[in-house]
Amino acid sequence: MLKLYGFHRSSAAFRVRIALNLKGLDYEQAAVHLRRGEQRAPEFLKLNPQALVPALIDGAHVLTQSLATIEYLDETYPNRPLLPNTPAGRARVRALAQIIACEIHPLGNLRVLQYLAKELKQDEPTVQRWFNHWIALGFGAFEALIAGHPETGRFCHGDQPTLADVCLVPQVFNAKRYDLDLKPFPTLMGIFEHCMAQPAFDRAQPSKQPDAE
Amino acid sequence: MLKLYGFHRSSAAFRVRIALNLKGLDYEQAAVHLRRGEQRAPEFLKLNPQALVPALIDGAHVLTQSLATIEYLDETYPNRPLLPNTPAGRARVRALAQIIACEIHPLGNLRVLQYLAKELKQDEPTVQRWFNHWIALGFGAFEALIAGHPETGRFCHGDQPTLADVCLVPQVFNAKRYDLDLKPFPTLMGIFEHCMAQPAFDRAQPSKQPDAE
Repeated sequence: MLKLYGFHRSSAAFRVRIALNLKGLDYEQAAVHLRRGEQRAPEFLKLNPQALVPALIDGAHVLTQSLATIEYLDETYPNRPLLPNTPAGRARVRALAQIIACEIHPLGNLRVLQYLAKELKQDEPTVQRWFNHWIALGFGAFEALIAGHPETGRFCHGDQPTLADVCLVPQVFNAKRYDLDLKPFPTLMGIFEHCMAQPAFDRAQPSKQPDAE
Repeated sequence: MLKLYGFHRSSAAFRVRIALNLKGLDYEQAAVHLRRGEQRAPEFLKLNPQALVPALIDGAHVLTQSLATIEYLDETYPNRPLLPNTPAGRARVRALAQIIACEIHPLGNLRVLQYLAKELKQDEPTVQRWFNHWIALGFGAFEALIAGHPETGRFCHGDQPTLADVCLVPQVFNAKRYDLDLKPFPTLMGIFEHCMAQPAFDRAQPSKQPDAE
């Protein structure tokens, strides 16, 4: 049985939950409470010295970093593939996923927001502006890449969910946290709504996890 | 002929140059001067609406996001593979690459440093501390994952360079920019030195590019 160490509000853990659900894999969840600092507890550091969730246990393997974990799942459990079947298609989907994972999400990570508040003494409105600034910039690029593109379908790439959708959905949840105006991103939001109508995405959302507050 | 739109000091472009060199691929370079804002010029935005380098042109395909680009190269030009041949090996290498690409590098990106200085009015020493803080944190995790690990060899994974080394080397160049103390990361630095002794890495470094200042 797969075991996922995560946190309901972690968007990286949210990605892995969606991928597991899309593939119809059973998994057990263990909560690592980030706001209480449980990711820095010695037992967790033994599992993942990065002090980050998610960490997925598959037999003898400890998988870390959500994108690497999802690619592993896709290679190991090939039913309902999360990547297209051509190199160019895979490059498009991975690039979209990486706009989220390498350009937007790292700047809104809990530890980054805490550094802004504690080390740089930034007030709450400034931290929220920072958070929304990077999402708006990245979503603008994302929208430009998908709007009117011949390979965009009901999902980011065609009519089946891929790694791009898996990354997009948790980031939209983050964007709603401080009420970012999402009207400038109509294609992106259409895909988000379509994703949320799928049980695999819906069941993975933070409020539906066992550790939700 | 492949054409790489890059910038000598961009570490994402540096990664792609290393990968191209490791695979022995010929490529033409076009400089996009980031400090002069050339990435926001209309002609470049038509190529990459993300306003980021690198962008690699391979025939009809425009590849963006360095990790997606390198995976594309690895699939399309399979000689000298940059990923191991097992799912668990690939997961390890991708996770190491993503510690750099998703945890460290995004926080030291030029546009992020500019936002800290201009929008948040942080002085130069504070910006440098920020820059080094995230590198030290990420390198600590990276060192913990590779030190004493049975799959670590002369490179991050065995005795052949992989995507993990391709990402590590440019980040070490960044770490040297503001004199981060690198003694706490002996395994990582040993691998860095070994990489830099290889012509594919050496020829890709910023000071040896046509647009170097």
